[in-house]
Amino acid sequence: MADSWPTSDPSGPLPASSGAASSGSADSGPTDSGPEASGPASPGVDLHLDLAAAPGSGGRRAALERALRDAVQGGRLAPAARLPSTRRLAEQLGLSRGTVKAAYDQLIAEGYLTARQGSGTVVAERPGAPSPARPPASGAQPPPRHDLRPGSPDVTSFPAAAWLRATRRALAAAPSATFDYGDPRGTLQLRTALAGYLGRARGVVADPERIVVTSGYVQGLALLVAVAARVVAMEDPGLPFHREVVRRNGGQVVALPTDGRGARTGLLGGAVDAGAVVVTPAHQYPTGVTLHPSRRHALAAWARSGGGLVIEDDYDGEFRYDRQPVGALQGMAPDHVVYLGTASKTLGPALRLGWMVLPPRLVGPVAEAKLYGDFHTGAIGQLALAELIGDHGYDRHVRAVRLRYRRRRDLLVSRLAGRYAPSGIAAGLHALVRLDPRGPDEAEVRRRAARAGLALGTLGDHWHTPAGGGVQDGPQDAALDGTAESAPDRPQGLIIGYGTPGEGGYPAALDALVRVLRD
Amino acid sequence: MADSWPTSDPSGPLPASSGAASSGSADSGPTDSGPEASGPASPGVDLHLDLAAAPGSGGRRAALERALRDAVQGGRLAPAARLPSTRRLAEQLGLSRGTVKAAYDQLIAEGYLTARQGSGTVVAERPGAPSPARPPASGAQPPPRHDLRPGSPDVTSFPAAAWLRATRRALAAAPSATFDYGDPRGTLQLRTALAGYLGRARGVVADPERIVVTSGYVQGLALLVAVAARVVAMEDPGLPFHREVVRRNGGQVVALPTDGRGARTGLLGGAVDAGAVVVTPAHQYPTGVTLHPSRRHALAAWARSGGGLVIEDDYDGEFRYDRQPVGALQGMAPDHVVYLGTASKTLGPALRLGWMVLPPRLVGPVAEAKLYGDFHTGAIGQLALAELIGDHGYDRHVRAVRLRYRRRRDLLVSRLAGRYAPSGIAAGLHALVRLDPRGPDEAEVRRRAARAGLALGTLGDHWHTPAGGGVQDGPQDAALDGTAESAPDRPQGLIIGYGTPGEGGYPAALDALVRVLRD
Repeated sequence: MADSWPTSDPSGPLPASSGAASSGSADSGPTDSGPEASGPASPGVDLHLDLAAAPGSGGRRAALERALRDAVQGGRLAPAARLPSTRRLAEQLGLSRGTVKAAYDQLIAEGYLTARQGSGTVVAERPGAPSPARPPASGAQPPPRHDLRPGSPDVTSFPAAAWLRATRRALAAAPSATFDYGDPRGTLQLRTALAGYLGRARGVVADPERIVVTSGYVQGLALLVAVAARVVAMEDPGLPFHREVVRRNGGQVVALPTDGRGARTGLLGGAVDAGAVVVTPAHQYPTGVTLHPSRRHALAAWARSGGGLVIEDDYDGEFRYDRQPVGALQGMAPDHVVYLGTASKTLGPALRLGWMVLPPRLVGPVAEAKLYGDFHTGAIGQLALAELIGDHGYDRHVRAVRLRYRRRRDLLVSRLAGRYAPSGIAAGLHALVRLDPRGPDEAEVRRRAARAGLALGTLGDHWHTPAGGGVQDGPQDAALDGTAESAPDRPQGLIIGYGTPGEGGYPAALDALVRVLRD
Repeated sequence: MADSWPTSDPSGPLPASSGAASSGSADSGPTDSGPEASGPASPGVDLHLDLAAAPGSGGRRAALERALRDAVQGGRLAPAARLPSTRRLAEQLGLSRGTVKAAYDQLIAEGYLTARQGSGTVVAERPGAPSPARPPASGAQPPPRHDLRPGSPDVTSFPAAAWLRATRRALAAAPSATFDYGDPRGTLQLRTALAGYLGRARGVVADPERIVVTSGYVQGLALLVAVAARVVAMEDPGLPFHREVVRRNGGQVVALPTDGRGARTGLLGGAVDAGAVVVTPAHQYPTGVTLHPSRRHALAAWARSGGGLVIEDDYDGEFRYDRQPVGALQGMAPDHVVYLGTASKTLGPALRLGWMVLPPRLVGPVAEAKLYGDFHTGAIGQLALAELIGDHGYDRHVRAVRLRYRRRRDLLVSRLAGRYAPSGIAAGLHALVRLDPRGPDEAEVRRRAARAGLALGTLGDHWHTPAGGGVQDGPQDAALDGTAESAPDRPQGLIIGYGTPGEGGYPAALDALVRVLRD
């Protein structure tokens, strides 16, 4: 009978009035004028409460409080149950009466117990035990055996040692104000480091005053939708998740078709009516096309002429393999283009570190939206990244993984040679493998891949609408890879993310891909 | 004449058509079929470009590209200016013609230059240099000499060494998947650690499945407003910043008056009509009142009966000085109360780490809103905090700073003894010092304090409306500190934050306060 408590007291109804334990000056708790707990005890109460079963710090009084709290929370002590008098419980447990009274008082202060003048201490009215928690819908899937889905870098390459060193330096150098609330735009150290890096490596017109550090690309996009972009044109095909980010933050998405020269910018202000456009100029997601220079000009001109805001998603601009990276579009019209970059592909998504380079007029509104959204992004990660950029460890890491990804890309191309010529391979961490209209389609390939334990993406995952519709190709636009004209249906293709597998798992993943495509 | 470039070419108008450099398959950039740059060179072009002035990595071609890009971005090379032929510039700079051509091609790909069939390479059409960035309105104020404003802990106490050790352990233990995109609810490690800690230290009914890790309290409140709370009752007085968080995220704020027993919960569902209420039961902000047990019951009953959602802001629950902390209200009605906690007061606001313990039905919607807001909170900080909680370093730190704050509180009380009796001092990092209606009022004290270089808060900073209005006190409610009845005007008082100054600066800040109050 250890741990057993009476679960109710049938001896009588409770008074209806809510007798207060104390009439409360601001600070006096109910300890000062607490309940008289020596009223008639429940008949037959026989407590064998094992205080050792409620381990923790704080002595016997604290143990008793925990035991009582657990008993009420867990439903073992039901609402309206009358507790033994302090004297009686003290005797039973071998505690002083003062200890028991203090524990009762504490639980009265917390609302678990109620003191009734003349009727002792009872369990407060509350429903039974809490319902068990349900895991949310977003349950984790088991990882596939071979993961060639696009979207993640090789996280086995995360430079944990360099990150730790950078954190140590950052903490050593930080004045104590660093640990207080900070500038919603981010730390000056990181904004300064980014201004230098982005100007140097990405051709961005950046100074610290126009940068806002974010908790990643998603937050940057969400902030822009809240502040400056209600109807947003987004590339078709493109990442569905980002479209949903726009919608969830109050925006409306319209499709901007793409072709072999990238986003069809000529449609903006015409068939595609939007106040803002999100583009991936360096490496269109998912087709891998680099935005054609004429389109870059058209886009910059559209923005400058008041057509709307251009949001440049430079998600993998650091990874260009065959020549120097194409500089950021933002450099052409820095007062009309927002540049969004991230450490997710270069270091790792888990850092949740991104940055926006904004036209000056948007800095204030975006910083304010950030302030009321999450105040600012955590400072220690920001300072570590600033250290890593400052001592060129960031560049070294980017160069090292760029080499690795390039080898992976080359291996992909060579393994598919003769049958498939992946496109979009000049940059980034993924390639488009067009499927022959006469062969198996996306659905069939995906079925085969699933049987082989291989996960991959498809073009079909990325269209705005399931099939057809939207704006038709104009005569001046080259179709995607030049073939869509002869195929009125949408092209079919696989999106192969070659960043995802760890270094050891990549060859086997390619083997699986080759087998699936050969069958 | 070093670094000088021709700024325009008066020799003739540019062709109107936008001649494309290449007809673009997906990956071929303009290098493959780039412009013929050997057209007629500008007469009189004489370039002395000092490539050493554009330092950086990547060799002479990269240096030339940077120099050209800088010149265009900076306005030295104006739109429509014609560049020298590749041959001529190669001769001038002592480079191979191929190098110059590659640099031109790169800048054409980036949109800075345009190739004209038969007329060489010109600077692309774009407006002049970007306008200089304006600093946003949120400029930093110089810190006051003596800072007794409430809201921040003593950030000189941030346990940087312990945090670094915890980070090291977290990184050493982390499987590589840790560095990828993660669960929007937060890492399982931190949710598990928090479930144990909050149950043990705060009486919260918590299991990892009902916890969502946030980037601080502000984000938690913002998420709740977006998901579950449109009309939100908030304590009056209370923190204006939090009211603005509600409004900025689409919520509407109504005032819930407080008195000497805390929030006047009896008004909910009556005079105060709201679907949710934010309360600070452990230590009302800013009056410091602990919510009376009868009010706790009433609030839990209101929530359970479908009255609305209770949002428990437990911002400083760890700091209770004279007896064990009052347990969380959430423990009484875990299916109807959201518990919000934060590391901001215990460790430091800059970490931007907070947590929500949710009724199970809200876990999915809140996690989804978080996903589309910023995906999840940075993982490395989460893992470091989990380590710190797991090895009880967190508890040790909390105990250590609690002792320190208690000494500060005692010093505050003793320094003001005889003239003022601060209230709200049982817990937290701030106290309310009521001003005598016959003496100087808040505005006058603030003026005197400003002259002494002393910053502090006032009750007047915290009312919902500038004066009067709102719901009147009911007969059953004790007025704030029992005196508001005799003073129909709102009570006047100072809010003294004794957490803010560094350990060394606190006595001097108190000296300043005493002088200001004595004058």
